[in-house]
Amino acid sequence: MKEVSGGITAAKGFLASGVFCGIRRNKTKKDLALIYSEKPCTAAAMYTQNKVKGAPIYVTMEHLEDGMCQAVICNSGNANTCNADGVEIAKKMCLALSDVLKIKQSDIIVASTGVIGQPLNVDVIISGIEPLVLSLSKEGAQNAAEAIMTTDTMKKEIAVEFEIGGKTAYIGGIAKGSGMINPNMATMLSFITTDANITSQMLKKALKASAEQTYNMVSVDGDTSTNDMVSVMANGEAGNPLIDSENGDYETFIKALNHVNTYLAKMMAKDGEGASKLIECTVKNACDIKTARLLAKSVIKSNLVKAAVFGADANWGRILCALGYADADFIPEKTDVYFKSEAGEVKVCENGMGLDFNEELAKNILQKSEIQINIDLKDGSASATAWGCDLTYDYVRINGDYRT
Amino acid sequence: MKEVSGGITAAKGFLASGVFCGIRRNKTKKDLALIYSEKPCTAAAMYTQNKVKGAPIYVTMEHLEDGMCQAVICNSGNANTCNADGVEIAKKMCLALSDVLKIKQSDIIVASTGVIGQPLNVDVIISGIEPLVLSLSKEGAQNAAEAIMTTDTMKKEIAVEFEIGGKTAYIGGIAKGSGMINPNMATMLSFITTDANITSQMLKKALKASAEQTYNMVSVDGDTSTNDMVSVMANGEAGNPLIDSENGDYETFIKALNHVNTYLAKMMAKDGEGASKLIECTVKNACDIKTARLLAKSVIKSNLVKAAVFGADANWGRILCALGYADADFIPEKTDVYFKSEAGEVKVCENGMGLDFNEELAKNILQKSEIQINIDLKDGSASATAWGCDLTYDYVRINGDYRT
Repeated sequence: MKEVSGGITAAKGFLASGVFCGIRRNKTKKDLALIYSEKPCTAAAMYTQNKVKGAPIYVTMEHLEDGMCQAVICNSGNANTCNADGVEIAKKMCLALSDVLKIKQSDIIVASTGVIGQPLNVDVIISGIEPLVLSLSKEGAQNAAEAIMTTDTMKKEIAVEFEIGGKTAYIGGIAKGSGMINPNMATMLSFITTDANITSQMLKKALKASAEQTYNMVSVDGDTSTNDMVSVMANGEAGNPLIDSENGDYETFIKALNHVNTYLAKMMAKDGEGASKLIECTVKNACDIKTARLLAKSVIKSNLVKAAVFGADANWGRILCALGYADADFIPEKTDVYFKSEAGEVKVCENGMGLDFNEELAKNILQKSEIQINIDLKDGSASATAWGCDLTYDYVRINGDYRT
Repeated sequence: MKEVSGGITAAKGFLASGVFCGIRRNKTKKDLALIYSEKPCTAAAMYTQNKVKGAPIYVTMEHLEDGMCQAVICNSGNANTCNADGVEIAKKMCLALSDVLKIKQSDIIVASTGVIGQPLNVDVIISGIEPLVLSLSKEGAQNAAEAIMTTDTMKKEIAVEFEIGGKTAYIGGIAKGSGMINPNMATMLSFITTDANITSQMLKKALKASAEQTYNMVSVDGDTSTNDMVSVMANGEAGNPLIDSENGDYETFIKALNHVNTYLAKMMAKDGEGASKLIECTVKNACDIKTARLLAKSVIKSNLVKAAVFGADANWGRILCALGYADADFIPEKTDVYFKSEAGEVKVCENGMGLDFNEELAKNILQKSEIQINIDLKDGSASATAWGCDLTYDYVRINGDYRT
């Protein structure tokens, strides 16, 4: 497996585009994205677990019931959530697109991201659909990646090439993240394409397994959004023998999928609203995987830990504190804590007690842009990693006045 | 019932003091507090539910097993948590105090607040105990209230006078709050004194019932501290008939206790680290009290809601979002949301959908220092209120560099 260029259109038979249609006031920012497969795809998706769901989520759920799909349409700038006519708008988007692409409405994944509860004029989207379809191309991957961004400061895309069943296949993805990102299901927008040949059942299984250790291990601010979704489409163009069970090819596929999803999840954390640092917390030697995940996420989510990392303050007591209020079992008296970055590594806590560590070194470590917090529970053999970011002045600034 | 001055020493037979003993570097800030009852008291306490508990918590738990106590000693500046000799230090504090006061060690509540995992020199505390005892007085209430403060910007104290069983009784309290405050048990330090005559069993029951709707409904940053505790001591000096069941006097007592605890809880939220606004969220017409509490707390805890209030941005979608990810049932399609303050009231969401509200008025409402978010679920008759604060640049500044 190797990383390649091409992003969401790296896989054979996929095209993409992104345009400005007029949802946003700022005309220099694209607001409508399309991903299209020349052939029908098996497909799977995971959705936000928030009880308040965006209208597009309900429409997509219905469309993916048969496990098939051929296109993704996504707008930014408005979440199409808590609007009286939200479902109608989402359906109109699909209808207009199906007319132009000559595909079934039910073969379309529809998504929206942006402000909740603002009126959305569907006419501007409909007027954007023809230019969107006309500009479909391999190179359009870039535009699609841009068009789904909200407060993101950078595009998030990746593609990998790998051998499967004697054939060369690709998985590509784009994502948007930033605020309202929290562990517990598809907590952002991430669209994945692949030319691997795989049944929708196995695709669903692979996505769920991968999301649990990637997207669900990311937190920016603890808020789980109403609209987030991760979807994957597979058009079989690679020509590998159909993956219809958990065989060796499935393992190969999931490994490539994990690579893509891990990258996108990390990029979401790194580009969290206002973030200046990526925090990676690994809990190892836990009694079981659930415990390891809960503890790693609790550390990543703590405002006090996040603010301490922002200030490069080796205040490890807050890490013990965050472990302690997680709903998971561990033995404080056996717990070791380390800080690590490219500047070095320092052990700050051993068996739950403070060490007389080198504060200067700790400060240097925490001043880097990628920080590891490593926790050894010495209580088993399970481990898990979670990703988050520091809490900064800019997070407050961005979220103090998001709508204007 | 009426509010009176006197704070923690308003009740008959209680004295208090606060001194600088040398735990802090800043000599202008007191760091050791004492509350003393001339007669033995029935007593009850609730403790942090964090799995990592400060050493003083364990010592106090042991001391209160018999439901009796006569003094509270509390230092600030160091949490005495995650130190190898923490329990030993807490016990030495009690031993030294018991020698001077001529009371049993087991009749002492010991508490600490400050940084976790820093070495604590018990000798400076022991050297402070004699001056602390010598300065005990009614007026010492002020000094005690100051000596337990950490990042608090104001003293938190209150007292009420009420009639019970034909006698006049008092309940007084001091608290410290600010950061690391989150619903789920005594999430701060709060010490309550009363001269009411009540058994330790009924005192325990009253404290638990009251804490559930006061301290447990406050969140500053979602972090539950390792050290927090609320305790209540009752010395019976009011001479009312002993409260030993849930009779009318018990109801009178709990009403006064709720008044004291509600005030202290609100003051903690208002004085949350970096806070510029108090947020009070009431969820009404919920299907049950548990649901109402979970939903109110979820709104209060949301970083996105907190940042929006800071920016006076009426982004009510974030409130729906925070309700949606709480672990509680409600019907989004029946939910109404209002913002209210001394500037007026505005309904921003009806039946889960946005209203075309007056943005100017909403902005004015949110620019005040006390903001109410009122949510009507139209799904039952239970209601609950939670208190929190906005998320500000100062929160980040304070917590980015707390230790230095």
